[in-house]
Amino acid sequence: MDILSVLKDLAIIVVFAKAFGLLARKLKAPQVVGEIVAGLVVGPSVLGIVKLNDFLEICAGIGVVLLMFSAGIGTNLKQLMHTGVKALVIACSGVFVPLVGGTLLYMGFYGFSEIGTPKFFTAVFIGVIMTATSVSITVETLREMGKLKTELGTTILSAAIIDDVIGILVLTFVIGFKDPDSSPGWMALRALAFFALSIVLGFVTYKIFKVIDKRWPHTRRIPILALALCFGLSYVAEKYFGIADITGAYVAGIILSKLHDSTYIEQKLDINSYMIFGPIFFASIGLKTQINGISWELVLFSAAFVAVALGTKVIGCGAAARLCGFRGTDTLKVGVGMMTRGEVALIVAQRGLAEGMISSEYFTSVILLIIISSILTPIILKLLYSSAEPAA
Amino acid sequence: MDILSVLKDLAIIVVFAKAFGLLARKLKAPQVVGEIVAGLVVGPSVLGIVKLNDFLEICAGIGVVLLMFSAGIGTNLKQLMHTGVKALVIACSGVFVPLVGGTLLYMGFYGFSEIGTPKFFTAVFIGVIMTATSVSITVETLREMGKLKTELGTTILSAAIIDDVIGILVLTFVIGFKDPDSSPGWMALRALAFFALSIVLGFVTYKIFKVIDKRWPHTRRIPILALALCFGLSYVAEKYFGIADITGAYVAGIILSKLHDSTYIEQKLDINSYMIFGPIFFASIGLKTQINGISWELVLFSAAFVAVALGTKVIGCGAAARLCGFRGTDTLKVGVGMMTRGEVALIVAQRGLAEGMISSEYFTSVILLIIISSILTPIILKLLYSSAEPAA
Repeated sequence: MDILSVLKDLAIIVVFAKAFGLLARKLKAPQVVGEIVAGLVVGPSVLGIVKLNDFLEICAGIGVVLLMFSAGIGTNLKQLMHTGVKALVIACSGVFVPLVGGTLLYMGFYGFSEIGTPKFFTAVFIGVIMTATSVSITVETLREMGKLKTELGTTILSAAIIDDVIGILVLTFVIGFKDPDSSPGWMALRALAFFALSIVLGFVTYKIFKVIDKRWPHTRRIPILALALCFGLSYVAEKYFGIADITGAYVAGIILSKLHDSTYIEQKLDINSYMIFGPIFFASIGLKTQINGISWELVLFSAAFVAVALGTKVIGCGAAARLCGFRGTDTLKVGVGMMTRGEVALIVAQRGLAEGMISSEYFTSVILLIIISSILTPIILKLLYSSAEPAA
Repeated sequence: MDILSVLKDLAIIVVFAKAFGLLARKLKAPQVVGEIVAGLVVGPSVLGIVKLNDFLEICAGIGVVLLMFSAGIGTNLKQLMHTGVKALVIACSGVFVPLVGGTLLYMGFYGFSEIGTPKFFTAVFIGVIMTATSVSITVETLREMGKLKTELGTTILSAAIIDDVIGILVLTFVIGFKDPDSSPGWMALRALAFFALSIVLGFVTYKIFKVIDKRWPHTRRIPILALALCFGLSYVAEKYFGIADITGAYVAGIILSKLHDSTYIEQKLDINSYMIFGPIFFASIGLKTQINGISWELVLFSAAFVAVALGTKVIGCGAAARLCGFRGTDTLKVGVGMMTRGEVALIVAQRGLAEGMISSEYFTSVILLIIISSILTPIILKLLYSSAEPAA
């Protein structure tokens, strides 16, 4: 691993990721799918011109941290408070049902196992991967139809945000519980301590940033300090509290989300993210995915995985929506709007791989889920809206 | 080297580099000096909280490549052609005199050595480090005094650009000649082949970029392709033509410098550069610099190094300016304007270290040169201008 081979790898990854990303967008699929395919194509599965190495792995890790930070800083806390209870109920139900569904699916395929065994945690992890909604495609679709600012649109958006938070909490706990030395009480205490620290630190940091923001608006020091906060909190979360680094990055983003210059920070960090670290992350998924020698069992499992992941979200969120007072096709719209998965599912899967909880073959299932849900959601949503409103 | 320790290192480097960079600016020194000091402070010399590792070394290498690309894309080819001959004469003389001066200085200290021996190349390399002017401080000073657009200002600026090109050519040749297997003829042939390729490739790439630029102006694909060209050409230059990767990056920058969207590309890549890779590069210089156990010999050498580097530039450029028709204090203004050194001197020294031509202790001398020249140039320039023009 020397600088020359890294320069070559980066040049190849950056070009292929962009080219396949644009191609994916042409085909109405999300760009990230294209970037994953780019990784597949340049990797050992097809061309074999790029091999994963330590440098790329670490860059991929930085890419994930930046993505989660970006998700955090984009959070609209005000809107979240506003739609409040309804969104919370829908999100909880939309996390719980797929979590149980995924766990049972794995056990159905590979046999039931007792609580606490490694196999049990793998099963739960398959459930965890299914929890987080990625609402960007739904948002795009609703915006196109002019329905984003309706009560339904706001509720879906808020539920998807809460759903991310809960998903990350679940991930944190599952990873923590897996460790045989950690007692649930100790785990919970450390998590509580971290969130207490986050609130105190968040308050202090927010005040400091506000002063800098006011005195020197739009200066380089703001995104640079934000970047340091993001990296620093990721490190502290995992090192001292046993909480996933990506949770730390997400919290760092939320801390800065109400800042006046938050969009400025987001823009600057996004450039780092989309130019180098983001493409490396998504391409690295492709580099790790084995397409030669896929077993029939995995194909079958992946099909069932996609069906369960989509079905449980629609049922979980739809039923909760009905409880909250939505009626008719509106309940279905909420369910379908919440069923898209994206980056976060990949990030969770990546985390599980790093912790040794799942093997890399399940990436295939997750990628399939992202592609299929991203294609189906806009189509079904449009159908639901056009069937509900007779042509004027 | 895992992701967690990298996150910690990055958070520390980014914060310290920015803080010391701002401090340096307050003290009227260049920001890069602050970033180097930041590396010294966090490194083993003082606090010892960051240690150089493979990941940081490669990031530093990427940082240099991005800096050289940025220097290339910022080149104003038109102006260069315009001031033409005068600037060329001044630049050549301003490269030649310090090159000889530096070589003789080293030999004076450590004994004369025959042409072709490793020691001879070390001596020449000390000269090479002295060649490249970094004109940014002079430009700032002249702009403040409203003298930048005068004939003198334009000449200094153009000479500094040509001087960079020549400096890089000299560097390329010295590195090539050091290899005992390479004959001078073969070296020159490969260098010629690379520049021929660059012209052809440059023409083709320029045309392609112009089409993209026109159809999709200001889209992400433009800086991403530029980044790939920069990395790709760096790789090809060194791997297949034996020319330093930074020369490839510089050429890639020049190829794109006449593009309509060149400032857009520069902005986007600069963000990558100043947020992460640039600070890592400058801090890594500090991390490598040994301040404990500096010998008296090195202190003495450094003092002589700074004196020779400044004196030879003033003499070389001043004499050439006189030849070109400048008179009186104007010749001195040209000489003093050209004597500042900056990033490029560090990049050259870094390259010499990587090739085993100099040891890391000479970083101390180079850093001193940058600091002292950056402080002296504006002061002397202002004195020269105020003495020449009697107060109105």
